[in-house]
Amino acid sequence: MFPKNTWYVACTPDDMADKPLGRQICGERMVFYRNADGQASALEDFCPHRGAPLSLGRVCKGQLVCGYHGLEMGCDGRTRSMPGQKVERFAAIRAYPTVERHGFIWVWPGDAAQADVALLPEFEWSGSPEWAYGGGLYHIACDYRLMIDNLMDLTHETYVHATSIGQPEIDETPCETRRDGDQVILERHMEGIGAPPFWQMAMRMNGMDPTQKVDRWQICRFSPPSHVMIDVGVAVAGHGGFDAPLEFKTSATVVDFITPETEQTMWYFWGLARRFKPADPELTGQIREGQGRIFSEDREMLERQQRNLQTWPQRRLMTLNIDAGGAHARRIIQRMVAAEQAPVLVS
Amino acid sequence: MFPKNTWYVACTPDDMADKPLGRQICGERMVFYRNADGQASALEDFCPHRGAPLSLGRVCKGQLVCGYHGLEMGCDGRTRSMPGQKVERFAAIRAYPTVERHGFIWVWPGDAAQADVALLPEFEWSGSPEWAYGGGLYHIACDYRLMIDNLMDLTHETYVHATSIGQPEIDETPCETRRDGDQVILERHMEGIGAPPFWQMAMRMNGMDPTQKVDRWQICRFSPPSHVMIDVGVAVAGHGGFDAPLEFKTSATVVDFITPETEQTMWYFWGLARRFKPADPELTGQIREGQGRIFSEDREMLERQQRNLQTWPQRRLMTLNIDAGGAHARRIIQRMVAAEQAPVLVS
Amino acid sequence: MFPKNTWYVACTPDDMADKPLGRQICGERMVFYRNADGQASALEDFCPHRGAPLSLGRVCKGQLVCGYHGLEMGCDGRTRSMPGQKVERFAAIRAYPTVERHGFIWVWPGDAAQADVALLPEFEWSGSPEWAYGGGLYHIACDYRLMIDNLMDLTHETYVHATSIGQPEIDETPCETRRDGDQVILERHMEGIGAPPFWQMAMRMNGMDPTQKVDRWQICRFSPPSHVMIDVGVAVAGHGGFDAPLEFKTSATVVDFITPETEQTMWYFWGLARRFKPADPELTGQIREGQGRIFSEDREMLERQQRNLQTWPQRRLMTLNIDAGGAHARRIIQRMVAAEQAPVLVS
Repeated sequence: MFPKNTWYVACTPDDMADKPLGRQICGERMVFYRNADGQASALEDFCPHRGAPLSLGRVCKGQLVCGYHGLEMGCDGRTRSMPGQKVERFAAIRAYPTVERHGFIWVWPGDAAQADVALLPEFEWSGSPEWAYGGGLYHIACDYRLMIDNLMDLTHETYVHATSIGQPEIDETPCETRRDGDQVILERHMEGIGAPPFWQMAMRMNGMDPTQKVDRWQICRFSPPSHVMIDVGVAVAGHGGFDAPLEFKTSATVVDFITPETEQTMWYFWGLARRFKPADPELTGQIREGQGRIFSEDREMLERQQRNLQTWPQRRLMTLNIDAGGAHARRIIQRMVAAEQAPVLVS
Repeated sequence: MFPKNTWYVACTPDDMADKPLGRQICGERMVFYRNADGQASALEDFCPHRGAPLSLGRVCKGQLVCGYHGLEMGCDGRTRSMPGQKVERFAAIRAYPTVERHGFIWVWPGDAAQADVALLPEFEWSGSPEWAYGGGLYHIACDYRLMIDNLMDLTHETYVHATSIGQPEIDETPCETRRDGDQVILERHMEGIGAPPFWQMAMRMNGMDPTQKVDRWQICRFSPPSHVMIDVGVAVAGHGGFDAPLEFKTSATVVDFITPETEQTMWYFWGLARRFKPADPELTGQIREGQGRIFSEDREMLERQQRNLQTWPQRRLMTLNIDAGGAHARRIIQRMVAAEQAPVLVS
Repeated sequence: MFPKNTWYVACTPDDMADKPLGRQICGERMVFYRNADGQASALEDFCPHRGAPLSLGRVCKGQLVCGYHGLEMGCDGRTRSMPGQKVERFAAIRAYPTVERHGFIWVWPGDAAQADVALLPEFEWSGSPEWAYGGGLYHIACDYRLMIDNLMDLTHETYVHATSIGQPEIDETPCETRRDGDQVILERHMEGIGAPPFWQMAMRMNGMDPTQKVDRWQICRFSPPSHVMIDVGVAVAGHGGFDAPLEFKTSATVVDFITPETEQTMWYFWGLARRFKPADPELTGQIREGQGRIFSEDREMLERQQRNLQTWPQRRLMTLNIDAGGAHARRIIQRMVAAEQAPVLVS
């Protein structure tokens, strides 16, 4: 259950730098490459000649060339040429609208006619010299909505990430959940606490004394179809927390782009955009490594949860107050999917 | 096809010593742990909050704590607490009757109301200073009844275990099969033969001359649902075989607890209870290693036999005289399963 | 979709030299071994006693002995003996007609009554001192007809084997396809070109100057059910190409025996019969290694093509002029399968 008339993160430019990338998105087998204009393109990963995956081919002067018999495919899904053949009547394959933005390649897996670049989200951290970004990709065998649930209820940090970002105060501090249009926002502010190990590390790297008491915040923002940005950080206690001046705080945004591969599997693009020491690539690497380790702790839990849900498909899960964020997100997704499936009235 | 209203060996205390153990028994996904009273407990491996497997959690002061969001589950399947939540109305999960006995944790996967500790089997070798026990566990991808067949027809030793416990005399010596209530007993006595390599090793360790002629016996006892105890041994020829005085013989009981995981897979708890040099743990280790090697020889045969039976499901197998033990056992099992499925008459 | 009343290559004598070989051919699980007369035999891989695979057994004085309980199976599928048993009424298992020819064991997986050794193909390279043969076996997860398509359209060499036997002239030179009864023949003659790396190596080994211009030919011959022999070679330009005297050319036959395992998987027996330096086994090894590397390049393409075709089962592929050879072969196969399924009229 996923909407298809929307933008998803498909890959990074690096993923398709050396050769075409085959990747399934929302049940669609796609091939990604950079076309003659230097723009990211996505096509069905299916050569109309004999069904070979085009992702096994290569890009030659901006044309995608099938690695089996040399058919040259245009980025519009129409064959441009093939050695010794007239190609005018070759069946076209599907081309998916694609945009490069915020350091990612985005794809619209549904009706191309409805694709609109204006619908792409904007992010404060993107393209600003005050921010630095690092991240990675995990393939996880679960319904992508389990990951949304996970990120919209950070009480799990106390248990799943006990040695890095978890601390009992998360559990103990109530959070507020609210909707703002199709955004779901969840805030938790913990005051006068000790920083957990990951944040102590970050404070040290930001030149702050990690042993002092801090105010810590987590502001999760879901926006459809499946983006979760989490403003996180610590400020020296009593200076305003999230609103403290920059010199008193170490703050960042956890970036989560969650892309369905199939109904039961997903691509998880995770990262951290930080607002301190942006010009330090070594620090970016260190943080990426730490975050990668922490976020890999969710993987086994989510995959085993998925298997449990498939074993007991009739069982209803509970929706507690801490699950409100995920529940709102699911309702928004459900409404989008229903809208896509509704008959279109032509006046 | 397995009865569920009966006791099965589920695991050893060691298996759940460090953390909860997730294990499927008779198609039921269970989590095993030691509760606040120090007793073994088994629950559905499903957190009622969001379906996470409880076996990924930890035991904290005897309470099973879900590793996802900290729900504390009682050993009766009712939630005891959860940070920030009222849990009175949380859905209960199933608790399975569990007993620790003979060095194993036993579970009753069926109707808990019928569970009765008095139905647990007793064994001469259990808890006696004259006996020593060592064993292990194999997961085997076959119907558990194929393993019962295997153990109730030891002519296979000549072929599958030719280099250790097999010898042509097994094939050549007729065996007797009889039923005693729900027990099936099969006896084979070979007289005045050379001991095969495994028994020569055991004789040597027991201080006997391994080159002399021996009387060898195999007495297989099946009891429902799927326990097979095999009295085995060799005595100096002419001293009475199985009934010979202890100083003339080296004897033991092969212990086989066979627990269905699913219809096509099983847990095989194998071991040897020996009645010689019981206070020698090094010998226990040596024997376990040897037995483990021998018993692993059955695995490929059973798994490939299972695949063959699935390939040719219509084909009827033959039941020869050597198969009588397994055939009796299957009938007993079938009767138990039929009784479980029969409508219960309330007078 | 494969005919069964025909001969397929099943294995090499080496494959069953040390112990019985279990192999699935055309959906039939078979066991291959050499019987008491020294002849190759094939039986259902199923012991009539308890369904154990006979391929886990051993050959004892030319009898196949089940590795589970010692049943001795005759090469006619009837049990010869079993320790302690009367076997006259044991159910027979299927025996498959088998012949050793051309260095391979051939099997007839269909109706044994129709098996006729006279229907085996003959090959010029087989049994002649002027030729030497080397080859290998790949298991490939695709419909065997995709491999026939592959071999009957060598334009793929330009793309899949670009660094060894591919060259643009293959694409640029039109080929002729014709049928001769149930054979399909496809010829391509390239004149006055540079030899590609593999052929330069072969020319050097044959004592020819590899830098000179050559005439290169490829003559593919499909014969049912799925044999593809490809006459290949290069001759010093202007000496008649394929018809040039031996001293001006380096020539060989690519040997492809393609045996369905299931509808979606196959055994690919590939090899090269060469007509130069036949008495040089070291050269045979070198060529085999090179050919093995080249032919393994097809594997990923074919397996991914198969998965694509299963993802998009409704899509029709194109049949271009270069695909004519494969298309003819498919029609011949289809006609054979239809004939096997037609009701047999008894006059």
